[in-house]
Amino acid sequence: MRDGNCIFCKIANGEIPSATVFEDEDFRVILDLGPASKGHALILPKHHFKDLCEADPAVAAKILPLAGKVGQAMIKELRASGFNVVQNNGASAGQTVFHLHVHVIPRYDGGPLMVSWVPGGATAEELAETAEAIRRGI
Amino acid sequence: MRDGNCIFCKIANGEIPSATVFEDEDFRVILDLGPASKGHALILPKHHFKDLCEADPAVAAKILPLAGKVGQAMIKELRASGFNVVQNNGASAGQTVFHLHVHVIPRYDGGPLMVSWVPGGATAEELAETAEAIRRGI
Repeated sequence: MRDGNCIFCKIANGEIPSATVFEDEDFRVILDLGPASKGHALILPKHHFKDLCEADPAVAAKILPLAGKVGQAMIKELRASGFNVVQNNGASAGQTVFHLHVHVIPRYDGGPLMVSWVPGGATAEELAETAEAIRRGI
Repeated sequence: MRDGNCIFCKIANGEIPSATVFEDEDFRVILDLGPASKGHALILPKHHFKDLCEADPAVAAKILPLAGKVGQAMIKELRASGFNVVQNNGASAGQTVFHLHVHVIPRYDGGPLMVSWVPGGATAEELAETAEAIRRGI
């Protein structure tokens, strides 16, 4: 369940040192070396999954409750006023390390809003067609 | 467990129609009316939780496995090449509707990369101090 060439496998399993925020049998939570904001953390499963599509659902199930705890700790201890949870799948989505990881990014009042997008448009007919297509695949 | 003034409560529970991608006893998954890309979906719990900090962990646990299924359906049926999972907590993090929701945003080869940030810097000492602060709060 590990990939010998994967840097996040090595970090998650303690072979490469990191600023560790939390550790249990399934995960290590570390600070990102290129933080979007002070406290930017990464939740790393100890097992190697390329992305969310390949993840064991039992492991994936533990991630958002853990992200909530980490975010609350950022609010309490770093005086953040909010946080983003971001998880990227595939190069086109900005994934650069192909070991499942979840960003928890604290936000501070007055700070820049770094995760955002420009809303596009879609007609009701387009939405209905697209919804039907996705529904087929679930 | 519902807030009568919350638009996402009304949508999740079918009182306001939506382009629905998936529904079960806990969630409705709809298409965003202002999509960042074709197929941009929102996972809405039927119960009202303001954000991830307030969410029932048993409900939160079901979200990422569901997001993985929705993302895989986008890859299969919409020919997306990847997807982002984004969840915002607090106004400073860009949350605009205060009912927990998770964005699943398909990405297409050649499309713009809309969720990103400029990596900042931090010294090893700063990272160690920040990690210690967050660790205290978990």
